[in-house]
Amino acid sequence: MRPPTRAPENRTDRRRAKTRQALIDAARTLIADGRAATASIADITATADVGFGTFYNHFDDKKSLFDAAIDQILEALGDHLETIADRTDDPAEAFATSFRHAGRLAIAHRQTAEIIDSYGFVLMESPTGLGPRAHRDLSAAVAAGRLHIDNVALATAITGGHLLALVHAWLADPTSVTEADVDASVETLLRSFGMPAAAARRLAHRTLEPLG
Amino acid sequence: MRPPTRAPENRTDRRRAKTRQALIDAARTLIADGRAATASIADITATADVGFGTFYNHFDDKKSLFDAAIDQILEALGDHLETIADRTDDPAEAFATSFRHAGRLAIAHRQTAEIIDSYGFVLMESPTGLGPRAHRDLSAAVAAGRLHIDNVALATAITGGHLLALVHAWLADPTSVTEADVDASVETLLRSFGMPAAAARRLAHRTLEPLG
Repeated sequence: MRPPTRAPENRTDRRRAKTRQALIDAARTLIADGRAATASIADITATADVGFGTFYNHFDDKKSLFDAAIDQILEALGDHLETIADRTDDPAEAFATSFRHAGRLAIAHRQTAEIIDSYGFVLMESPTGLGPRAHRDLSAAVAAGRLHIDNVALATAITGGHLLALVHAWLADPTSVTEADVDASVETLLRSFGMPAAAARRLAHRTLEPLG
Repeated sequence: MRPPTRAPENRTDRRRAKTRQALIDAARTLIADGRAATASIADITATADVGFGTFYNHFDDKKSLFDAAIDQILEALGDHLETIADRTDDPAEAFATSFRHAGRLAIAHRQTAEIIDSYGFVLMESPTGLGPRAHRDLSAAVAAGRLHIDNVALATAITGGHLLALVHAWLADPTSVTEADVDASVETLLRSFGMPAAAARRLAHRTLEPLG
């Protein structure tokens, strides 16, 4: 959980920041439970264990709260993925490794998976999210001659489609999708994006360093 | 557009069926415009050009109207795809041809594309929809030794993910996704489901007979 943008300066500020975060955490829980659309402000404040009136001290409406919750989730995931991209000069490797980590995170945490599943491509396209990163890495890999893609926007969408498919199948039956399936999926993607089979296999199964 | 289940017997019945269909057509328009969630009953009856009170003569609530609209769309698409499956003994061909036709329908009609995009995997999993057909064809292709898939449920989800990705990219920029991209996508899928490259290429580019 990242700290609020402005560091709390005194006890009142700290309490205020804590309440705001409690509301955001409640929103994340409701998203994960598939209740984001139907939850009332009263449901949200009850879940957060704060007073009903408190809500409007922090957010204008339900939508602005849920937007804040999604932003926080995407920023955390984005921070993870940046540390990965920083470790390699090969954009194809950055792409493959980001996909493998994102897939692992998604099939390890039901809350993350529910959010990805319910938001779908909207999430993929968020400026703080996965889509722009995948687009950037794929473009760089083409420029570097590592991949051969005519339509990078379509390739990005297909990458998103694979991730969503893995998450969706896992939610339906958590025993049915494993980390090996995530790796097999990115191997398929790399081959369909023009990487020779042997290179794709190597890249998709390289030992993953833990997220730092 | 298929006729109502019971054939209208007299003028009153015919008028009633016509009003019901006007409401369903309005729902399809609102789904396509991305307004399904926010549209009021008044919006729906205004779009259908019928009186406000008429709504409750036909549907209990908004949800039952939209369910009826989605069912109608899926039934029409399903009917199309059944005529295709009937033409071949090869389930791998039935799979590939269904995917190619579904992709072509989706990127030819903005309304269909908007509906597929906004409903996503929910649509894929509808009993009248694409998912169960893909699952059936893939299972039969495995049994016939045409494909080699460990996890047919995951393969079905990945097929859905590809179709959703094509539709989503086409909606963002209709010039960016062509029928050739649909064919390339199913070629990739067939190869990743264990079909030799040459056979996958042949099947993905075979001349398509028009829908009957």
